[in-house]
Amino acid sequence: MQGKDMPGVNGGGPMWKQLNNEPPDSPTHYSDDELMLGYRDRGMESLDYEVVESVAYREDQAQRGIWHHASYVTLKWTFALLIGIGTGLAAFFINIAVENFSGWKFAATFAVMKHSYFLGLVVYIACNGALVFSSVYIVTQFAPAAAGSGIPEIKAYLNGVDTPGILLFRTLIGKILGSIGSVGGGLALGKEGPLVHTGACIASVLGQGGSTKYNANWRWLRRFKNDRDRRDLVTCGCAAGVAAAFRSPVGGVLFALEEVTSWWRSQLLWRVFFTSAVVAIVVRTAMGWCKNGKCGHFSSGGFIIWDISGGQDDYSFYELLPMAMLGAIGGLLGALFNQLTIWISTWRRNVLHRQGNRVMIIEVLLVSLITSILSFGLPMMTTCKPCPDPAKYPDVTCPLPSSNYGNYVNFFCSNENEYNDLATIFFNTQDDAIRNLFSTNTPNEYTTRSLLTFLVMFFSLAVLTFGTAVPSGQFVPGIMIGATYGRLVGILVVNASRKNSVDEGTYALLGAASFLGGSMRMTVSLCVIMVEITNNLQLLPLIMLVLLISKAVGDAFNNGFYEEQVKLRSLPLLESRPQRFMRTLAAKDAISTRKVVQFSRVSKVSQIVAVLRSTDHNGFPVVDNLDTGEPVVIGLILRSYLLVLLQAKTDFQHNSLPGDIRGQISFRFTIYFGCLDCGIYVLCHGLHKS
Amino acid sequence: MQGKDMPGVNGGGPMWKQLNNEPPDSPTHYSDDELMLGYRDRGMESLDYEVVESVAYREDQAQRGIWHHASYVTLKWTFALLIGIGTGLAAFFINIAVENFSGWKFAATFAVMKHSYFLGLVVYIACNGALVFSSVYIVTQFAPAAAGSGIPEIKAYLNGVDTPGILLFRTLIGKILGSIGSVGGGLALGKEGPLVHTGACIASVLGQGGSTKYNANWRWLRRFKNDRDRRDLVTCGCAAGVAAAFRSPVGGVLFALEEVTSWWRSQLLWRVFFTSAVVAIVVRTAMGWCKNGKCGHFSSGGFIIWDISGGQDDYSFYELLPMAMLGAIGGLLGALFNQLTIWISTWRRNVLHRQGNRVMIIEVLLVSLITSILSFGLPMMTTCKPCPDPAKYPDVTCPLPSSNYGNYVNFFCSNENEYNDLATIFFNTQDDAIRNLFSTNTPNEYTTRSLLTFLVMFFSLAVLTFGTAVPSGQFVPGIMIGATYGRLVGILVVNASRKNSVDEGTYALLGAASFLGGSMRMTVSLCVIMVEITNNLQLLPLIMLVLLISKAVGDAFNNGFYEEQVKLRSLPLLESRPQRFMRTLAAKDAISTRKVVQFSRVSKVSQIVAVLRSTDHNGFPVVDNLDTGEPVVIGLILRSYLLVLLQAKTDFQHNSLPGDIRGQISFRFTIYFGCLDCGIYVLCHGLHKS
Repeated sequence: MQGKDMPGVNGGGPMWKQLNNEPPDSPTHYSDDELMLGYRDRGMESLDYEVVESVAYREDQAQRGIWHHASYVTLKWTFALLIGIGTGLAAFFINIAVENFSGWKFAATFAVMKHSYFLGLVVYIACNGALVFSSVYIVTQFAPAAAGSGIPEIKAYLNGVDTPGILLFRTLIGKILGSIGSVGGGLALGKEGPLVHTGACIASVLGQGGSTKYNANWRWLRRFKNDRDRRDLVTCGCAAGVAAAFRSPVGGVLFALEEVTSWWRSQLLWRVFFTSAVVAIVVRTAMGWCKNGKCGHFSSGGFIIWDISGGQDDYSFYELLPMAMLGAIGGLLGALFNQLTIWISTWRRNVLHRQGNRVMIIEVLLVSLITSILSFGLPMMTTCKPCPDPAKYPDVTCPLPSSNYGNYVNFFCSNENEYNDLATIFFNTQDDAIRNLFSTNTPNEYTTRSLLTFLVMFFSLAVLTFGTAVPSGQFVPGIMIGATYGRLVGILVVNASRKNSVDEGTYALLGAASFLGGSMRMTVSLCVIMVEITNNLQLLPLIMLVLLISKAVGDAFNNGFYEEQVKLRSLPLLESRPQRFMRTLAAKDAISTRKVVQFSRVSKVSQIVAVLRSTDHNGFPVVDNLDTGEPVVIGLILRSYLLVLLQAKTDFQHNSLPGDIRGQISFRFTIYFGCLDCGIYVLCHGLHKS
Repeated sequence: MQGKDMPGVNGGGPMWKQLNNEPPDSPTHYSDDELMLGYRDRGMESLDYEVVESVAYREDQAQRGIWHHASYVTLKWTFALLIGIGTGLAAFFINIAVENFSGWKFAATFAVMKHSYFLGLVVYIACNGALVFSSVYIVTQFAPAAAGSGIPEIKAYLNGVDTPGILLFRTLIGKILGSIGSVGGGLALGKEGPLVHTGACIASVLGQGGSTKYNANWRWLRRFKNDRDRRDLVTCGCAAGVAAAFRSPVGGVLFALEEVTSWWRSQLLWRVFFTSAVVAIVVRTAMGWCKNGKCGHFSSGGFIIWDISGGQDDYSFYELLPMAMLGAIGGLLGALFNQLTIWISTWRRNVLHRQGNRVMIIEVLLVSLITSILSFGLPMMTTCKPCPDPAKYPDVTCPLPSSNYGNYVNFFCSNENEYNDLATIFFNTQDDAIRNLFSTNTPNEYTTRSLLTFLVMFFSLAVLTFGTAVPSGQFVPGIMIGATYGRLVGILVVNASRKNSVDEGTYALLGAASFLGGSMRMTVSLCVIMVEITNNLQLLPLIMLVLLISKAVGDAFNNGFYEEQVKLRSLPLLESRPQRFMRTLAAKDAISTRKVVQFSRVSKVSQIVAVLRSTDHNGFPVVDNLDTGEPVVIGLILRSYLLVLLQAKTDFQHNSLPGDIRGQISFRFTIYFGCLDCGIYVLCHGLHKS
């Protein structure tokens, strides 16, 4: 939409001249206008993040002593500590549970498989179905806001729009338990996105002083129950979630910085950093406690750390070409993934999910059934490969018994000395599958056919799964998809170059980075997360290169995954830069056919009450006239402030005001508009009773 | 200074009511008032970073097509690429030169030492003196702005204040050549800070389309000759400098983000990231080209990468105590370092450096002489230690011949089987000294006495050296100091625990982090830089912990090193958060006794000319009256805009304006004030001729 297509752009005149001069007491309503941002108002409210600078505020600040400030700061840091500990423990709990449920599931399947493959499949399907059912049941019956990734909602929240229910205590519980079920149940989704949401919920619940609904509420914690402080806490929680999910503390800080907060305040940086450090220490301590098999099936496998330090740490100049190609593929596939998820999510929202919880539950169970059958059946139909020559690869153990998770698993092979390459990635937990895809010094482990099969199937499953009513993250599926085609390209390069220095695992890693870059379009934070989870700094410049290309390619087609999902949920998101066409627009163009309800400088109480009753606007411009008669906006008054003033009406009536303005409220404003190219948002305003 | 001490705070009334109503044509001058920020105006100008949103701008934007936009974006990215390449090559050149000069210097010294130790000392002093002289001569005669670190000036620039001469082509040349001399000459300073400045200069020179003074100026590059674009380029250059100095691309991005830019725009993130990636690839390619001794003495030693992957990657819980102690020591020593440099810099500025270039040159040569004598003489006076038992430490080569740079160097030892621990850190290039301090699996290499001697001496030298008229960075000295006391604490812990898992080198690294944290007070970027230069992600949580503590302790005493230096240079710096006392201040308190020169809405040209002639203000509020007679600020007009309008005066005179306002300029403004708690700054304003 270009400026010239917009109604009402006549390219001149000061903005305040073009204000609607409708008398303030005439009730106005939103017209059902799609506006330029393409979403409708759904009763969501913008949060008040900035301090409202008024005379009252200034007087209040002047009164407050150093002690008040000190206790406030102490409490903030205590919260940061608690968020770190809470999120770290939640992540630990989820990981232990997932690993153990998966472990039991596979153990049961393998035990039964000894007798009958068919019964094994049945057990496998049943286990997955039960786990997934637990997840979808909790989500649909108890915590509907826990469905999906949660990151789009958190992103919207931190950008100023609160979605109902997204940060409640029940959402937190639903997210944790739901994640365990959906990830343990083997669906093509991850637990990382939900962990970010979990962290945010923990922060918000803490900040509210517990849950009002469950009568666990502490008075003295209420001090943080304002938009500004709550938002800071949620930012900390969000970073803590990433730090816990990927064991990537710096990545967490950067994720909060880059992806989530367009309202970043630099004071936050240090606190977020502290929270992340706490998470890192908590997770590490908890994992140290779990050594020596204390925690059942949970071992190092749970947290996604794929150490590929054994991979190639050098590269030839010509290798930059296939790596750039990976970036391009990542951009294309990522954009395709985004587009497909948009379509399927729209369909779900408009058609399928309107039909109630029962349909949602059946849908998830069907997806689970398909996933189980594919991940069990496709490896069965694959012909096994003979083990590599032990003389050439002395440190490879091949074949592994099928109950193990490593490389070279013998699954449904006719020969003893064979392994099933598809089973090592498909019939496995996703963490282990990624570990196998990233594995270094295992050239030609996978056939091109197996990888292609897996790529197509898993891509489809990931698209199909996202948007169902279970908590679902996109990081792990993204890494799986990317690593698969990365490994494919790696095979090509290995065959073309015939040099020993080229390693397929490194290409798999770069492929993973490229897909995430092409889908999520993050740069710095993703780069750091990739480096931190693979524990290999040598590859940093290559990861940067791949990310830059994949983001550029992806941006040519659509927005990033989270932006698209935010749009899909009709959440208004203030982007960091205004679109080009907005440069020529004035505020009145954004208002379009909607009418602004305004107050004059001196307004009668009865007028104000009438306006408050008849409209649902939450802010009203206050307009005065210059001596030339031209109107001039002198400020914006919030509904909430008017309500406070009106509730204190008696004060006005018994005040020693000049006789003729008794019963009136006079507003004087200092004007503090911030200006984005796209319009106006209020930074702060001053209110003065006289 | 608390609010109640400020004159003119009467805690009420809208701000615009308290404006000075002095008629606009009465000349007003700055009174010599220390103001609340404690610095005087030195004729520095705030830059115009934000787009000035006026009707003219909007019309211009509407006219410009997609082609204009595309070429602009292409050019921006081309610049980012060029900055990356340029900074990478500059860093490479500096490193090669420094390593080779140092190499020749040590080779000559050792060659002469075979005959006479005294002559060796003379040669050593002469070499150092010559190198340092070259540096100080270039700086004093040719590029005075190249002295010092450069980071404070860049920080100020990116926060809105331009220091004269700081980004010129001659400063760039002076910085590069000066760095080579001062670092090669063995002074207690580093080349990393200057590299950041170098990167910024490269960016600025590119953005200006070359150097006007040297007639190398390209017209078509002039498009970037505005404050906003130039600032973006300088941010890229700054990140590139860090990326090149530490080979830390992510650290570079974060450094630019955290330390330098309080006006961060998120659009920049991606471009800065790209520049850093380019630097990483350029440096790596250049270093690959230098393999096999092609570049003389330059080998892997040049760029500071200290691989300590061999160190401890695990820690016991009780170790957190000595590590926290390290943090506290770092905070204390860092704050002490800051304080001492403030005092000595003040004295230099007020007394010593007023006496001209000759004194500056003599001063630097004296410092060089002291440094040479100490670094040569102190190791000579140390008693050598016997080599460790080869049976116990089979991979230690001891002693090394004195011409080598590694550990266990035999320097001035009476016995064959001995080594001089002080010489390995003092009589060495700083990069190698740090490598030796960080070295792992070398317990008890250093005696406590040697380390203490070195700590005291080097700390004093670093304080003494900073502020002399040579380019000087504080990173490497900081790492040296921190690593020394870190190693001391490490020795204590090793002796106390008697466990093999504790490694002195790891404590040295944490010590280095703590000192930098305590002095510079960066958190995230420093953390990433430390991780990237040591190539060890395992230590990340520990580094975070140490940094948090050292910053907290340091903050209790004074501001960060760069902030203090910025203050010392009397550069006004808009801090990211307003100080507490500012919360109760209004703009008029900041203005204090200075007078605002204002225009009324309709002003005569003669009036305006008179005001422009009689004042040096660069911005004038425009005031109109409400119909109640109250004045209201309706905008701010810049001197530059008035000049443009006045130069186009003929247009007004021949315009079809209503008869009675001919010869007048009428201003109509839309008001866009942004509000910090501390006062007012202008985001953008609209100007409309009528």
